[in-house]
Order: sequence, then structure tokens, then C-alpha cells
Amino acid sequence: MKNIGYYNGVTGPIEEMQVPMNDRGCYFGDGVYDATCVVNHVPMHFDDHIDRIYRSAGLIDITIPMEKTEMKRILQGLVDQVDGDCCMLYWQVTRGVGMRNHAFIGAETKPSLWAFVKPVKMRDPYGAYKCITVEDRRFYFCNIKTIDLLPSVLASEAAAKAGCDEAIFHRGDRVTECAHSNVHIIRDGKLKTAPCDDLILPGIARKHILEICKELDIPVIEEPFTLEELMAADEVFFSSSSALTSRVKEIDGVPVGMRDEGTFGRIRDRYQQKLKEECGIA
Amino acid sequence: MKNIGYYNGVTGPIEEMQVPMNDRGCYFGDGVYDATCVVNHVPMHFDDHIDRIYRSAGLIDITIPMEKTEMKRILQGLVDQVDGDCCMLYWQVTRGVGMRNHAFIGAETKPSLWAFVKPVKMRDPYGAYKCITVEDRRFYFCNIKTIDLLPSVLASEAAAKAGCDEAIFHRGDRVTECAHSNVHIIRDGKLKTAPCDDLILPGIARKHILEICKELDIPVIEEPFTLEELMAADEVFFSSSSALTSRVKEIDGVPVGMRDEGTFGRIRDRYQQKLKEECGIA
Repeated sequence: MKNIGYYNGVTGPIEEMQVPMNDRGCYFGDGVYDATCVVNHVPMHFDDHIDRIYRSAGLIDITIPMEKTEMKRILQGLVDQVDGDCCMLYWQVTRGVGMRNHAFIGAETKPSLWAFVKPVKMRDPYGAYKCITVEDRRFYFCNIKTIDLLPSVLASEAAAKAGCDEAIFHRGDRVTECAHSNVHIIRDGKLKTAPCDDLILPGIARKHILEICKELDIPVIEEPFTLEELMAADEVFFSSSSALTSRVKEIDGVPVGMRDEGTFGRIRDRYQQKLKEECGIA
Repeated sequence: MKNIGYYNGVTGPIEEMQVPMNDRGCYFGDGVYDATCVVNHVPMHFDDHIDRIYRSAGLIDITIPMEKTEMKRILQGLVDQVDGDCCMLYWQVTRGVGMRNHAFIGAETKPSLWAFVKPVKMRDPYGAYKCITVEDRRFYFCNIKTIDLLPSVLASEAAAKAGCDEAIFHRGDRVTECAHSNVHIIRDGKLKTAPCDDLILPGIARKHILEICKELDIPVIEEPFTLEELMAADEVFFSSSSALTSRVKEIDGVPVGMRDEGTFGRIRDRYQQKLKEECGIA
């Protein structure tokens, strides 16, 4: 099958899938999501992503009406039907269906499960990418992976219009994260990355990168860093379950980083190795 | 008809309406909306609301693919089909339908028009209501009426759980607005209301209230005010096209306001009079 969509037990080609207009995802962004790349029909870091969507849902008082094993079973069932070596698995849980009303108390709000699987081209881990910077005017729920994504949409569009690959957010002078990834810098052989507060999403790729740094004896500083530090870093890279480790060569048209391939390359290569091990490819 | 839903030219009972899963409203909150109450089949302040949704759309680079007169004609056509003296007319414009991708450049994104009309009970303009206060952790796009409403959903639910009618947001000590209305105070015969910046929505009811104050020689101070000023005010009320002028008697369980019915009553009565004139009822 070339792709598949899913909504509360119903499947079909994504382009033909329909959902109730009264799903609270449609009026309020009242839901959470997760996504990962699928290689060789194995969703990468699957348990991490499953754990995160349950955590995200819990943080906005959505109780997902199924066990994690059942969610995994449904999603794996979709993954298994789609052809292609590399796919994206996306799924979201909204609060449910009901006549539009901000408060949800007393509403018939059995949460809805939405999902799709489609082939994607894996980003080249040996490439070097361009970014823009954008003032971070998002809400203070960035630790929750909600579908209220308009600021990220606008920033991503601005990046695309500028011929760039990602937008790096900053609140004043402090760099937070990107429109759909985390961002890290390397300076003097040490990795520096923003701490997990309500300004950034606790990325799954970020978590695995920190584990890799520990394993490789690369010191990690989990502290806020500034735009100045970003521009002056030896290396800059962003990470997500689709971006993996994406090295940055230019920000706002100015060359950056690309001065410590030794350190960056060790992280990148170990990440690629773990990905291959996990997905059972050579 | 007891209610009606609309999506890109298709109509039916709201509960049965379906929309494409790939509408960007479903994944990203990538859209804007407006709503007003309908009395005697007349949408209140209709032109103001039409103007506002075009302005909201423009601010996020959505070009609505129809003239304002055409949008009005479609919506009035829906209003005319629903029975009931008092209804809510809701409509939203999303960026359109396409495979999920943050950036929208090059996507087939002809904007989608969604709408529904349903009977509602008009709020008693002579009632007195209870509120809670909630720290305002929303984004800095509050001047745009987007469908990224999760923080307002959570605040409204907290209010409902506390047996209250509305949640008043504050950023630190500064009162901004409510979860789905603007909030105003009266002190020494003067109305004080937050200025229109990116922290509040420029409410249509708010605009008409300011016009009424001018007409009635009630001085208006458009300046930020604090939680302390809120709690110490002679009167507190919130306004929207469904709340109209809703007087507040209690905030976080503490009695407030209710000490200058003279001034508040003049605003409320003139607002009711204008509403009746506009909607052609006695």
C-alpha cells in the first residue's frame, strides 16, 4: 500500500480519510501527537514515543482509553501495510468528539486516535543545512507535544521561503529550540543544549544524543545558551526523530560551526549505528 | 432545521459533518475563526466579524478565496435555515487540505471554509457571574483569532470545575483578557480596559462598549491594569459577542465589584438597546 490513514478504527488512503467536524482537534487544537521515522518497518525509538504521547496527554488531562501495548499494536499494524524502506509514522490523540464548547466537563469526550504512515526520504546525515532565526512567541506549554502548532508553521514557512531547512527560535537572547526539532551546540569539545523546561520539547532524539555523549565521554552542559553562543559555536546541529542529527552550516545567511567534525562526527556516527541496530539493517 | 454544519459547500446536521483528515486545521491549528450570536436570524455586528476574520487570516498569510459579500451570503444562507430565536453562528477558515507538512509553500492550500449554526440560550444580561484567575501562558498571537485554543480550553475547564463562568488571564500581575472574552473594570465612574496589543483579542463587543462609553460620556482608560485593581474595582465585567456584558460578582471565591450599578447599568442597557435595534426586535 502506498500510504495509510487511520481514525478511530477506520482506515483508508490518507487523502480519502474523513473525520467528524466536531472532533475537538478541529476547533481547538485540543490534542497531542507524536511521530517517528520507520525504517525496515521498525518505528524508531517506538517505546519512547509511546511513553511521550501518554505523558503529553496526561499533562492536558486527556486519558487515553487504551493500554500502551494496544496503541503499539494498532500503529504497528498500519506500519506493516505500507511499502517503502523509510516511512513516517504520525499519530495524534484528541480529546474527542462533541458540540463545540471550550470546557469539556460532562462532554462525551472519548479521546480519538488518528494516525497515518507515508513514505519519506530520510534526511542525509552527512549533509549540512541552513537555518533562520525567529523570535519565539509561542506559549509556555512547549514541553507538551500539542497540535497547537501555528507559530511553528509560520516559522517553518519563513525558513522554506528563505531557502532554509529549519527555523531556530529564541526568546530574546536565549535560544530555545527549532520549529520542529531541538538544537545543540558544540564548543571546546563539549555539547551544550537547553534544559528541559516549559520552553522546549523533551526530544527523543535529544535524549538518545545525551546518552551517546555519556557513552563517548563527551561532556554535556544542559544550560540555556544565547544567540551569540550559537553563532560562535564550533558546531551547531538540530535533532529530531526525522532530522536525526542535522549539522548546520549557515544561520541567517552567516556561516556557522563546521569546525569540530571530530566531536560532531562521533555523535552522528554512533546515532546512525544505533538506528541501524534498532531497525535491524546492516 | 435544528442545526446546520457547513464545509466547503457541503451542508448537513453538525453531528454528521465530516471533513478531510488532511485539512491543516486538524494537524496544526492552522486557521482562524469568528463567531457571533444570531437573534431573529440577524448575526449581530456581522460586518465587524467578517472584517475581523479577513484581518485574522491576513495576519497568518491566509488569503480567503472569496469576497466578503460572498462569505456573508453563504453564512446568512445557513442562519436562515435554522429554527430558534437565538443561535450561535461559528465559522473558521483553515489554510486548506494537503499532506501534513509544517511549511505550506507550494502546497495545494486553497483555504477551507467551515461553519455551523446552532441554537443557544442567551446569557442573562442582568445576571452576575463568577470567575477564576489563571496565569496567562498563551502565545503572543492573542490579537489573532486563531484555533490554537488549548490554553483557553484548559482555563475554561478549570473555571467550569470551580463552578464558575469564565477564567480571567493575567501575565504576572497584569490582567490581559479572559479565556473567551475581554474583561473591563469600572473605578470612580471610569471604564478601564487593556489596550489592543498582542496580548488580547480586539473584541467586537469591546469595540461597541467603548463607542457606547463615548456616547454616554463615560471616560475610558485604555491601559493595562493589575490583579489588585481588578479585585478593588467598583465593577468588573467581561464582554464578547455571546457573553455581551456579563457582570462579575466573585473572583477566586472573593466578592468583587457590584458597587457602581449606575455606570455599569448604563453601558449594559445601551448595549442591549443597540442589539435589539440591530436585530429588529422590540
